[in-house]
Amino acid sequence: MKELIIIGAGLGPQSITLQGINELKRADIVLYDRLLHPGILDFARGKELVQVGKTPYKHCIRQDEINDLIKKCLSEGKIVARLKGGDSTVFARSIEEIEAAEEMGADVMIVPGVTSAATLSAKMRAALTDRRTASGVVFITGHPKNGEIEDTYNWKALAGLGLSIVIYMGVKNAPRICRKLVEFGMSELTSVMIGEKLETEQERLFRCTLGTISETIEGNMIENPATIVIGDVG
Amino acid sequence: MKELIIIGAGLGPQSITLQGINELKRADIVLYDRLLHPGILDFARGKELVQVGKTPYKHCIRQDEINDLIKKCLSEGKIVARLKGGDSTVFARSIEEIEAAEEMGADVMIVPGVTSAATLSAKMRAALTDRRTASGVVFITGHPKNGEIEDTYNWKALAGLGLSIVIYMGVKNAPRICRKLVEFGMSELTSVMIGEKLETEQERLFRCTLGTISETIEGNMIENPATIVIGDVG
Repeated sequence: MKELIIIGAGLGPQSITLQGINELKRADIVLYDRLLHPGILDFARGKELVQVGKTPYKHCIRQDEINDLIKKCLSEGKIVARLKGGDSTVFARSIEEIEAAEEMGADVMIVPGVTSAATLSAKMRAALTDRRTASGVVFITGHPKNGEIEDTYNWKALAGLGLSIVIYMGVKNAPRICRKLVEFGMSELTSVMIGEKLETEQERLFRCTLGTISETIEGNMIENPATIVIGDVG
Repeated sequence: MKELIIIGAGLGPQSITLQGINELKRADIVLYDRLLHPGILDFARGKELVQVGKTPYKHCIRQDEINDLIKKCLSEGKIVARLKGGDSTVFARSIEEIEAAEEMGADVMIVPGVTSAATLSAKMRAALTDRRTASGVVFITGHPKNGEIEDTYNWKALAGLGLSIVIYMGVKNAPRICRKLVEFGMSELTSVMIGEKLETEQERLFRCTLGTISETIEGNMIENPATIVIGDVG
C-alpha cells in the first residue's frame, strides 16, 4: 500500500496538531525540511529520518530530487511522511510532491498545520485581519521561483487592496518590496512586524514601519527564515 | 493574576495543537464559539464552559457583549480561555478581545491554530499556492462588517493579482463576488473548491468553477459555515 502523508507541523514542537502526531506514527520513513525544529522529530522516534531541506540561495537538494526520493521510497512499499515546518498548503510545494506520488499510484493525505504568519502575529498579540483596518490578508513569497521580485507580483494591485500583506522568506527582498508598495501609495507609516527564526532559541521579534524596514533589517542583521507582516493589525 | 488566552483550535478535535491543549488546562473558564466542534470541548473537561458564538444574519451575542463578558470574568480574577474554531489570527476579531482584556490590565496570550482554508485544501489534496499558477493567496471574508460586499473590497485589484483567493463565510455573497471577479478579467473556468461544515458529520466538499459556482451552491443548498478557494491550485 503506497502512501504519502504530507504533514505541516507548525514551527515548534508545541505547534504540531494531534492529527500530525498520529499520522507520523503510521510512517515508515520521514523526509523532513532542513529548517524543521529538531524538537518536532521527537514525535518521529524510531522512524527512518532523512533531511531533504532546501536552503534558499545555496546549493542543496532540488525539488525534483526530493520528488525522486519520494518516488523511490514509495516504490519500496514504504509509507512516506513528508514533514514540513509551518503549514503544508502555503509555499510548501506540496502539489509537486503530490503529483510525484500520484504518478506512482500512491494514496496521498495532507495534514494542515499552523502557518508562520499566524505564529508571528500571535506572538505579537496581533492578528492578520482587523475588521476596522484590514478586512483581509495576502500571503506572498519574497523568494520567487524565477526572476526579479519586481516582476513577480502586481504591486499596484497589492498596494491598492487595503489588506495586510504577509511576506514569507522575504528578508533579502523586503526593502525592494516595501519601496514598491510605497511607490503605489501605501503609507511609509504602515506598521510592520518581523519574526526571525520563529520558535527557535535564536528567535527575534521586531516592530518597525514600511519606511524604516530597511534600516531595521540591516541594523539588526536579520536573516531568513523570517516572516514579515505589513499592516496596521495590532 | 488576570489573563486572557485566545486559542485557535482548528476545526476538529484532531486539529488542535499541543500548545492549545496545554494552555486550555490552565484556564478557569472557557468561552467558546457556537460553531466550535463539540469534540474540542473534551480538552476542556472540568472547566466552566460558556458558549458565546455569533451566528451570521441571526440575533445572537454581539461582539461588545463578548468583550464585556471577558472583562467580567477577568475582574473576578479568572484565567479566561477564549476558544475559537480555526485560527485565532484570521477573521476571529481577536484584536477587539485583546483590547478589552488590556483595558483590565490583563496579560494576553494567543495560541495560533490551523485555519479552515488550509483544512479545505488539505482535504482536496490541493494547496493554496502553487509556484506555477498562484504565487500567493488572499484571504477575504464574504460577510463584511457593514454595507454591501461590492463596496468592501477592491475587486479590480483582487482580480488582477494572479493569486488564489479564499473566501470565509462567503456562501451568501459568493455569486456576487464571483461575478465581480469575472467582470474584472478572471476566467469563468478558474477552479473553485467549496468546503461546507468542515470536520463535522455534515461535511460536504465540492469542486466547480467561477462560472458554475452559483448553480453549485443553489443546486446543493450549500450553507455557511463554508470556505471557498478560488484558483487553479490542484
